[in-house]
Amino acid sequence: VIEFDRYATDREALLASLVAERGLVPIHPYDDERVMAGQGTVALELLEQAGPLDVLLVCVGGGGLIAGCATAAKALDPRIRVVGVEPEAGDDVRRSLAAGERVRIPVPRTIADGQQLPIPGELTFPVIAERVDEVVLASDAEIVAAMRLLFERLKTVAEPSGACALAALLAGRIDARGLRVGVTISGGNVSAERFAALVG
Amino acid sequence: VIEFDRYATDREALLASLVAERGLVPIHPYDDERVMAGQGTVALELLEQAGPLDVLLVCVGGGGLIAGCATAAKALDPRIRVVGVEPEAGDDVRRSLAAGERVRIPVPRTIADGQQLPIPGELTFPVIAERVDEVVLASDAEIVAAMRLLFERLKTVAEPSGACALAALLAGRIDARGLRVGVTISGGNVSAERFAALVG
Repeated sequence: VIEFDRYATDREALLASLVAERGLVPIHPYDDERVMAGQGTVALELLEQAGPLDVLLVCVGGGGLIAGCATAAKALDPRIRVVGVEPEAGDDVRRSLAAGERVRIPVPRTIADGQQLPIPGELTFPVIAERVDEVVLASDAEIVAAMRLLFERLKTVAEPSGACALAALLAGRIDARGLRVGVTISGGNVSAERFAALVG
Repeated sequence: VIEFDRYATDREALLASLVAERGLVPIHPYDDERVMAGQGTVALELLEQAGPLDVLLVCVGGGGLIAGCATAAKALDPRIRVVGVEPEAGDDVRRSLAAGERVRIPVPRTIADGQQLPIPGELTFPVIAERVDEVVLASDAEIVAAMRLLFERLKTVAEPSGACALAALLAGRIDARGLRVGVTISGGNVSAERFAALVG
């Protein structure tokens, strides 16, 4: 494990230098078609188990999960609306979709540390641009409220980024009345102390 | 919902007076053979899914869960060792087993609020005496450690009483080396704030 300052260091550059120095084989967390396809099985399983949905809400960080999920979901049902959710402070994918090209922002300051990325993936962005209908935002407070609901009602632990899509739904960021909505809850990398600090 | 002071009021007497006054039908949380039988399906399902076990650890409050689980487990496999777990401060069942009769203790002061009972159930105790091999204890600190592990590794929320059996196992309160051990995790009635206060 190599630690670095997220705000001061370009992690892609760090990765490239490690690969060059040590002859490592990089496994990218999202910008790899095999990773995107694997993460897309989330939507595949969800639709197989839940049946048809009107809307699928997916947390967006680097975009691997939503690129795969949108591909799987639209292949099964072209009418499904795939909506990405980013934290308010880190809306690089939403901005990029509006601009029609990948936009870089400063590393966002948000509790959703799985989404503290400055730019959409090179491979994920074209898939998102083609298959994702919309990206909406959730605030940090809305994310904490979703984490709390998951904890108290579903007895499930989600990290901030993993609860982001549910946060947008609960906060009314999309109009879901009368619709069948699927929500990804992705990631539980949150320590008990960190959770305590967030909800306390 | 009728609130009362757990330390100042006898809840059984309160229940009896409400039943008498209002003609209510009481549904006891443990001292009812139907409740015990229903809770015993926990062990039934566990053994059906996990296969044979050497030891089954069960949280003990009023004793409904363990009475039912011991009945089911021993019926399926008489060799299985059924071990109850109480919080250190509330060891009324352990004391009662040692005394050979139901022993009343002051309402225990423990974080395990589902086990703050002063005396074993009238119907549960004879079943426990016949079918439970042993009762061991877990401290409040050991219970918090188990809640933390469930949260961080299993992404599962358990209340203190629900994590009590796992706490005893993790703390080495029984010798489980080389054995197949089943553990009940029962109850998630803990608010995010309470959890934060406990682990913070």
